Amino acid sequence: MLNGERSIPRPLRWAMIGGGRLSQVGYKHRSGALRDNTAYRLVAGAFDIDAARGREFGVNLGVPAERCYDSYQQLLAQEANREDGVEVVTIATPNGTHYEITRAALNAGLHVICEKPLFFTTAEAREIKALAAEKGLIVGVTYGFSGHPLLMQMRVMIANGDIGEIRMVELQYTHGFNANESADKFEAQKWRVDPKIAGPSFVLGDISTHTFYISQLVMPDMKIASLLCDRQSFIPSRAPLEDNAMVLMHYENGAVGRMWASAVNAGAMDSQSIRVVGSLASLQWSDAAPGELRYEIQGRPNQILHHGMPYLDDSALAEERLGALHTEGLAESWANIYLKFAIAISASQRGDRQTLATLIYPDIDAGLEGVRWIENCVRSADNGATWVNYQ
Amino acid sequence: MLNGERSIPRPLRWAMIGGGRLSQVGYKHRSGALRDNTAYRLVAGAFDIDAARGREFGVNLGVPAERCYDSYQQLLAQEANREDGVEVVTIATPNGTHYEITRAALNAGLHVICEKPLFFTTAEAREIKALAAEKGLIVGVTYGFSGHPLLMQMRVMIANGDIGEIRMVELQYTHGFNANESADKFEAQKWRVDPKIAGPSFVLGDISTHTFYISQLVMPDMKIASLLCDRQSFIPSRAPLEDNAMVLMHYENGAVGRMWASAVNAGAMDSQSIRVVGSLASLQWSDAAPGELRYEIQGRPNQILHHGMPYLDDSALAEERLGALHTEGLAESWANIYLKFAIAISASQRGDRQTLATLIYPDIDAGLEGVRWIENCVRSADNGATWVNYQ
Amino acid sequence: MLNGERSIPRPLRWAMIGGGRLSQVGYKHRSGALRDNTAYRLVAGAFDIDAARGREFGVNLGVPAERCYDSYQQLLAQEANREDGVEVVTIATPNGTHYEITRAALNAGLHVICEKPLFFTTAEAREIKALAAEKGLIVGVTYGFSGHPLLMQMRVMIANGDIGEIRMVELQYTHGFNANESADKFEAQKWRVDPKIAGPSFVLGDISTHTFYISQLVMPDMKIASLLCDRQSFIPSRAPLEDNAMVLMHYENGAVGRMWASAVNAGAMDSQSIRVVGSLASLQWSDAAPGELRYEIQGRPNQILHHGMPYLDDSALAEERLGALHTEGLAESWANIYLKFAIAISASQRGDRQTLATLIYPDIDAGLEGVRWIENCVRSADNGATWVNYQ
Amino acid sequence: MLNGERSIPRPLRWAMIGGGRLSQVGYKHRSGALRDNTAYRLVAGAFDIDAARGREFGVNLGVPAERCYDSYQQLLAQEANREDGVEVVTIATPNGTHYEITRAALNAGLHVICEKPLFFTTAEAREIKALAAEKGLIVGVTYGFSGHPLLMQMRVMIANGDIGEIRMVELQYTHGFNANESADKFEAQKWRVDPKIAGPSFVLGDISTHTFYISQLVMPDMKIASLLCDRQSFIPSRAPLEDNAMVLMHYENGAVGRMWASAVNAGAMDSQSIRVVGSLASLQWSDAAPGELRYEIQGRPNQILHHGMPYLDDSALAEERLGALHTEGLAESWANIYLKFAIAISASQRGDRQTLATLIYPDIDAGLEGVRWIENCVRSADNGATWVNYQ
Repeated sequence: MLNGERSIPRPLRWAMIGGGRLSQVGYKHRSGALRDNTAYRLVAGAFDIDAARGREFGVNLGVPAERCYDSYQQLLAQEANREDGVEVVTIATPNGTHYEITRAALNAGLHVICEKPLFFTTAEAREIKALAAEKGLIVGVTYGFSGHPLLMQMRVMIANGDIGEIRMVELQYTHGFNANESADKFEAQKWRVDPKIAGPSFVLGDISTHTFYISQLVMPDMKIASLLCDRQSFIPSRAPLEDNAMVLMHYENGAVGRMWASAVNAGAMDSQSIRVVGSLASLQWSDAAPGELRYEIQGRPNQILHHGMPYLDDSALAEERLGALHTEGLAESWANIYLKFAIAISASQRGDRQTLATLIYPDIDAGLEGVRWIENCVRSADNGATWVNYQ
Repeated sequence: MLNGERSIPRPLRWAMIGGGRLSQVGYKHRSGALRDNTAYRLVAGAFDIDAARGREFGVNLGVPAERCYDSYQQLLAQEANREDGVEVVTIATPNGTHYEITRAALNAGLHVICEKPLFFTTAEAREIKALAAEKGLIVGVTYGFSGHPLLMQMRVMIANGDIGEIRMVELQYTHGFNANESADKFEAQKWRVDPKIAGPSFVLGDISTHTFYISQLVMPDMKIASLLCDRQSFIPSRAPLEDNAMVLMHYENGAVGRMWASAVNAGAMDSQSIRVVGSLASLQWSDAAPGELRYEIQGRPNQILHHGMPYLDDSALAEERLGALHTEGLAESWANIYLKFAIAISASQRGDRQTLATLIYPDIDAGLEGVRWIENCVRSADNGATWVNYQ
Repeated sequence: MLNGERSIPRPLRWAMIGGGRLSQVGYKHRSGALRDNTAYRLVAGAFDIDAARGREFGVNLGVPAERCYDSYQQLLAQEANREDGVEVVTIATPNGTHYEITRAALNAGLHVICEKPLFFTTAEAREIKALAAEKGLIVGVTYGFSGHPLLMQMRVMIANGDIGEIRMVELQYTHGFNANESADKFEAQKWRVDPKIAGPSFVLGDISTHTFYISQLVMPDMKIASLLCDRQSFIPSRAPLEDNAMVLMHYENGAVGRMWASAVNAGAMDSQSIRVVGSLASLQWSDAAPGELRYEIQGRPNQILHHGMPYLDDSALAEERLGALHTEGLAESWANIYLKFAIAISASQRGDRQTLATLIYPDIDAGLEGVRWIENCVRSADNGATWVNYQ
Repeated sequence: MLNGERSIPRPLRWAMIGGGRLSQVGYKHRSGALRDNTAYRLVAGAFDIDAARGREFGVNLGVPAERCYDSYQQLLAQEANREDGVEVVTIATPNGTHYEITRAALNAGLHVICEKPLFFTTAEAREIKALAAEKGLIVGVTYGFSGHPLLMQMRVMIANGDIGEIRMVELQYTHGFNANESADKFEAQKWRVDPKIAGPSFVLGDISTHTFYISQLVMPDMKIASLLCDRQSFIPSRAPLEDNAMVLMHYENGAVGRMWASAVNAGAMDSQSIRVVGSLASLQWSDAAPGELRYEIQGRPNQILHHGMPYLDDSALAEERLGALHTEGLAESWANIYLKFAIAISASQRGDRQTLATLIYPDIDAGLEGVRWIENCVRSADNGATWVNYQ
């Protein structure tokens, strides 16, 4: 059980690019990174495209004014000149900038933590993967829902054969906050439906990548063979970007799957869930009640496993923060993945290959797989919602 | 609110074909028909393929031994000779016999209530529809979940525009009772996976037609333009019949939809649900809690409507039997549809065209539409899970 | 599993006193008694204090007009003269008439099924118990929620020690339908707050006796040693009758308990629940989802048992009607207890002492215990909400 | 909406007494205080009764070794000599030490944040209240569940009359983690059942004070007139301290209430809830799903309000951290109350009387009221579970 004691020798010097006052995700990054005070120190930032607003904001976060920069370029350049310059940078800017900032940061010798979807293309992702490998640097991707301890429990139970052979995978991430066109007017939202900034998709990239990564986390051996994606723009001005998408999948082992991603599921307040159906039992988890895992064995009473309980696997308990009965939420998940990024970065700095080889966290490959997922979905959708081999 | 008072001038003389001691559905038919004592009298039957067992069973139900027949042919022949012969017959036999028995019963001048799926082909259904029209007889189909009062509420609210324009229809009927091959050994189950008796599908016909009819009941104006069905036989011995199917739909108005039907959703105990997403709000109902209807307006608190409450539409309250707070279940739904069959039959007998023109119940057209749904799904699936125009 | 086959040699000739068109419970009685067509035939009635309305109603139920009587006295007198006169009568009239009608019916040689609360005093109940014994007649009490199969499961599990030693019993039956004084104006409600007709209590008698009986059903060995009742009349015109009551209990074995009964729990739609806490585990059941039983073992995943599943005890499965996945409601519970009344009455008629000795159903003792419960609660409340020894 | 920007001019220099490696609550304090990096800096501590273990722990939290003290006395003495000495100290030690440490800290000129139950007696609480007032220092009490935003919503709705006149208050905080005596062997638990260290109660002080404070927070105008408490020690070795308690309350306005506090509610995983029943509607909240508030208007569809939604009151949205759809948990609640402590302390330092007069947080009065609640409950229980006037 985590209690705030250091997991790495000393806190990392950390900066944010983006994530300013109007950002929807900036606070989640800071909550995650700073949760334990022993993993990161926020020492610099280029928080906002409006430089003055960003500087005022950074100062309000306790960052020295002189390390609140006007641009990421300035940040990278000037921090490189400091003895105590930043070691790792978080990129929480709109999608269209992820690639160039990541490349620049890696070239500046910094570890990178980047928002999803990582980039626009798998070609970009492969290039960055090679660059990071060459530089010996970590690239983490903030699949912020993937740090819930019960997902580790799900992974272990599936690996143990507790549900038998996997037959069906049911994925969903839907909400209704964009049911009306007026939602697109808000600064934090409008770029998400602009292909130049958002990339080739809206909801596929913005939300389904979270659930897709969770599916990979809990079933690492399941590979998609082919898929079919049908996407819609119920608000026509969003076209060609979709605000609703339905995907069918065929896995290599004969299992099948579905994904529903939507920003127009009016009134839905429970967002994201995963159900994995096996030949003996099913496991189901939802981020609306992340401390519960349903384990449904055919022909037996349904079970509800609760976070923090001694009957869970050690890997789930290792990520526990509050303990049984004490409701955990999204912030604990973010804190867990940020802590893993720090462990990976520190291991990288210290040449600790053993840790790097075994640590499970959303790394550059997870980011690449998310982009690949989007790419295949868009290819299918643009081909008339037909089956495509997963490339 | 229904309280058992007669809805028709006198009870109908009713017989069952099938539905004997080992039947899974026979009791539901009797519970539905006899609930109020004023709609039907069970006076004859050919309850079982094992004639002796069927006779003993019928006698145990209170049917005179001489009217417990060895076969449906005998029943039709001998009842025709009685002054007090049966007027309406329920067919609760395996799928493969529905067509011939229905045709014979209609030709014998009897009204028919038949299990779903009605027949194997739309050609058969159209032929029977014409025959029933020619004879002036009613054919009802036991979509037994469709009599829940809150479905009428859902229909009215959608018609009123309470959810705006329909965008997405999410349908599901899944369970896990056939997750293991051993389930196929039971007499009440084994025919369901034999194409000669079950017809061209297993779960599509056996369960998805229920939910499909509910979707038509609550959204009578929504027409499917095209669909795609992907079906699997996770227990190989069931092939070509599917134990799992996933369907995507395009409606003529631009809405999209999904159906998941499965008998291998291990451990699932909540079976059937429908969610209709509109531009303003969504409505969601599940047969696991049929007395609740979720009404989720985007940007407003979610609402839960309860059966029997005065704020409901008159059409929902008209079908109420137990009253608010008193939990209703599947038996009330069956009683409601059986009562409507009786009202239709009585109206037919009395030439009451007004009633026949306005009564909403699962009639021959509903049965035909179910067969059409299966036919299109199977055509798509057998064509490699490709899009097909809805024919 | 029940499927409508006869449980007794022939249906009983049955009449109703009360339960007419405006009655809230009349339909539940008829649904329960007539469910299977093999237990009862409704052949006579004195349905309404308005004799003409009652006769019209009875005819609409299919009762011959000449057996729709103006009063219970007339019914008892004239049916006694018939060869095919009634054998058992249901009393569904306001509380204040239960005693005199029961006594008259027993003296007329009829078995009795009576609404709760049975009578006003335990003295009356003891007198009637003696009279019934003398006459060799059955008196059943319609604790209509007590026929849910999972209550038998709960009884067996507690008896088996599955929850360890009982420590705490949490009982609740609350709703909000009388939150406003205007509710008292309805004919079916206004007598309930008139002490002359309702007796010494409103919610204690009207609703808490249901849950109290369930507690006795599932824990037959638990005896109350003392209790304390605090009751309120939030609508002052109801005084001295309470619309809210809170009871604390001490059991003889050292366990403690609580009851909350209320008709002013505004907005509550889930009514009735029981939780029994043992030293190892708890069992919880609610009539809002009567097909689920929560089994919570300390330190283990919580379990949900579902009705109709093979892992249940035979005593629970014996009362199953619809089967797993098919939602059961209050009507099945009523049908189950009415069937048990019929079995008891038939056993009594045939001198089958073995059946009478082992059948578990709400009999005269259960009725007496309900009256005793109210009597003790009212005594405590009227003594200033102090502890009283259970007498 | 909170996003980590500073709410006070500069972070406070903060120390912890207790809350070391084996503590159940230490991490919650640190998570709460350090969440935003702009309210507190953890600069010193006397974390553990085992000084060496405490020092190692403190260093692991990033505290300089020389400011990890052997005892609270040493901490107070040595920090007083530093220019940059601590300004505020959290007391997370067993109950029996709260009074002396609080007094010493106040006398050393430090603000205090203390665990509940604050002290053993109201006399102590009144003395400390006077001392804090004399010194001009803040005493905050960590009712850690009271910072959930929807509790502010509940407070506003009740004040607005949205539920009408309050009639019934239903409070519960139960779990089963002490169902077995073996639980008492753990170091973090065993002192809780030792009257010398825990004080006059176990579950009343340990858990019911949380829910009691929440009731005062949402209904500040409701005053208890009298109460009755019945307490049990189901594990006899815990006597005279109770592991289960049931309380009845009479409020001055005629409303009534109940509390159930238990550590032996075997298998219960949902812990704490409050339901306030008014003449028109009820409001219900549970810490198991703290982002939902049920609003049940009699005669209308039940409503579920969700955290972070624009329809909420500004006071609820002001405490929002993650936004709608993003599940909040206990950590956000702690962060909110720690932030309020910081705002109060800073206001106190700056002489900002306006802020101090209007800020709603668990202050010394809230702590005193908690002790008063326990005192009255214990007095009633020890008097044979009789009614006592609330003193």
